Amino acid sequence: MTAIEHFWAVIPAGGAGTRLWPLSRSSSPKFLRDLTGSGRSLLQETYDRLAPLCEDRFLVVTGRAHRDAVGEQLEALSAQSILAEPSARDSMAAIGLAAALLERTDPDAVMGSFAADHVIGDVEAFGECVRTAVGVAREGWLVTLGIEPTFPSSAFGYVHVGDPLPGHPGASRVLEFVEKPSVSVAEGYLATGHFRWNAGMFVVRPGVLLDLLAASDPDFAAALREIAADPSLLEERWPALPKIALDHAVAEPAAAAGRVMTVPASFGWDDIGDFDSLTTLLEDDTRSGATVLGDETLVRMLDASGLVIPQGGKVIAVIGLDDVVVVDTPDALLVTTRARAQDVKQVVSELKQSRPELT
Amino acid sequence: MTAIEHFWAVIPAGGAGTRLWPLSRSSSPKFLRDLTGSGRSLLQETYDRLAPLCEDRFLVVTGRAHRDAVGEQLEALSAQSILAEPSARDSMAAIGLAAALLERTDPDAVMGSFAADHVIGDVEAFGECVRTAVGVAREGWLVTLGIEPTFPSSAFGYVHVGDPLPGHPGASRVLEFVEKPSVSVAEGYLATGHFRWNAGMFVVRPGVLLDLLAASDPDFAAALREIAADPSLLEERWPALPKIALDHAVAEPAAAAGRVMTVPASFGWDDIGDFDSLTTLLEDDTRSGATVLGDETLVRMLDASGLVIPQGGKVIAVIGLDDVVVVDTPDALLVTTRARAQDVKQVVSELKQSRPELT
Repeated sequence: MTAIEHFWAVIPAGGAGTRLWPLSRSSSPKFLRDLTGSGRSLLQETYDRLAPLCEDRFLVVTGRAHRDAVGEQLEALSAQSILAEPSARDSMAAIGLAAALLERTDPDAVMGSFAADHVIGDVEAFGECVRTAVGVAREGWLVTLGIEPTFPSSAFGYVHVGDPLPGHPGASRVLEFVEKPSVSVAEGYLATGHFRWNAGMFVVRPGVLLDLLAASDPDFAAALREIAADPSLLEERWPALPKIALDHAVAEPAAAAGRVMTVPASFGWDDIGDFDSLTTLLEDDTRSGATVLGDETLVRMLDASGLVIPQGGKVIAVIGLDDVVVVDTPDALLVTTRARAQDVKQVVSELKQSRPELT
Repeated sequence: MTAIEHFWAVIPAGGAGTRLWPLSRSSSPKFLRDLTGSGRSLLQETYDRLAPLCEDRFLVVTGRAHRDAVGEQLEALSAQSILAEPSARDSMAAIGLAAALLERTDPDAVMGSFAADHVIGDVEAFGECVRTAVGVAREGWLVTLGIEPTFPSSAFGYVHVGDPLPGHPGASRVLEFVEKPSVSVAEGYLATGHFRWNAGMFVVRPGVLLDLLAASDPDFAAALREIAADPSLLEERWPALPKIALDHAVAEPAAAAGRVMTVPASFGWDDIGDFDSLTTLLEDDTRSGATVLGDETLVRMLDASGLVIPQGGKVIAVIGLDDVVVVDTPDALLVTTRARAQDVKQVVSELKQSRPELT
């Protein structure tokens, strides 16, 4: 796989992953954890799959609290490749700042934005997909990778795909982005064959992204460009930036204006939204009756199945419970079921009040 | 409550309580643990309820490994009040040795044998019941306390009650002891009103007990009396003693010979056979949705119920599971349901091979 000239990988590394508590904490978020048993964190795996495409052209945007951890996990990165946000201001500010910096650094840059906590199955297919998207983006389009939906999920937004783009095999127009639908609406989407999951993977020239932003919020785009021109302004200007997702600030209005293309992606994708999807992801090893993330010799299952994570180092015995989720850590233990995995966030929300040091 | 003259309390303190693993271990068995949240171990509670009846006339029979722990928990006991068995040889040897010693110590002795790991609700009613039993036993009968059955249990043996004993209000003949029945057979027992649970609580003159044993196994009775006469023989003779329960060695043949009486007992009794019965025992406190043995502030229940034991000191969150059992200790964690509580012993049996230090 050869590198793509002037291609820059932007990696927003944020989000606490509260639905993966107590494995993921605000002090030790999802992207810094090895959730696949590969020996590499999700951030490191994201880096590993992009490095062949962008060489050393990385910008990781993360919170100040995680700057050191990111630097330790990605030793090959230079200090300038890690941008530390003074505070969390959602994805438009984070990715927009990266765009504004790249616009000044490399006039021929095409950037691709990829979250630090996603899992991708076929890395080669991913690379080819990005290569196609970069080709389309060079012509001034905002390009989104359209993930092939494998089931009618109500947890993701969708991309509504229109006609093919002439001259770019595989690329098609995006008619609109649609918010997370109900399962029955999602079933309708899948039946048409014209909808794909929106994984927030955007490929675009930095100036195009900022100009699209300027069309809907000129002050926001101007502020990002001013900070890039004079980084000493960061501290002062950052807190006033709008807290908005890139999808809402740019992608949706740009689609309405006919400025967005999609490249279909069938490389196996997962954002590990909760312990249910983590179980599915890890599920091939069923030797002990459980899916185990960690030391399998610690687990005893008797008429039981599900996910067991023995991070506390102790023996865990489960009897007579199917599709259970047991996550043991040194200071907190979660016991639930795959079906109730989404409700972990409710417990975390309560603990933020009563025991904030555990969240 | 006044003491009963010449009444001796014999407390066999043995059994690992494997169905209460990982709370109970062979190194830290059930009787040494506080399982009721009272601040006193089951052994200490057994002592507390007997001391008003027997003053300092105690004999605790335990394994060598637990002699020091028993002495520490029962500081008021003299060293001679604790008999350490060289090895576990079941209840006939343990209680029979106590009988043989008492036969020599106090010619007017009546002994009562009460396991160290049972829970009794109404201590005053228990005391009155023992007092009645001692009166009957003085006349040469083997007396068993007949526990009023509260449900058709298949986990206990039963006492089949016959005609009242003239001159002793409340005492009746025992027709037979029956082994643990099926639930449907137990339902039949309860319907007759003539069956009671056998909790292994026997009250008897030491010489009567040994003579009854001698009727079925003269060598066994002779060996116990020889050891009592010359304690230096203990080490040599003990390993050759039969490994048999008092119920089989004495109570069943004595009942067949018309030598056993029962005194009905309605004082609330539980042998805490597993985590299901422990839950029932503790169940009045449902403030957090869980029955908690330990620090209730550590437990978070969301649409969940059951027993949670946070002995590891960490926060435990349970979501969407009813009648669950979660027992967290520093080196082992059990997750099961009340319905499967009996199967804990299967896991312990496997761990005895793979991780004996945890059992």
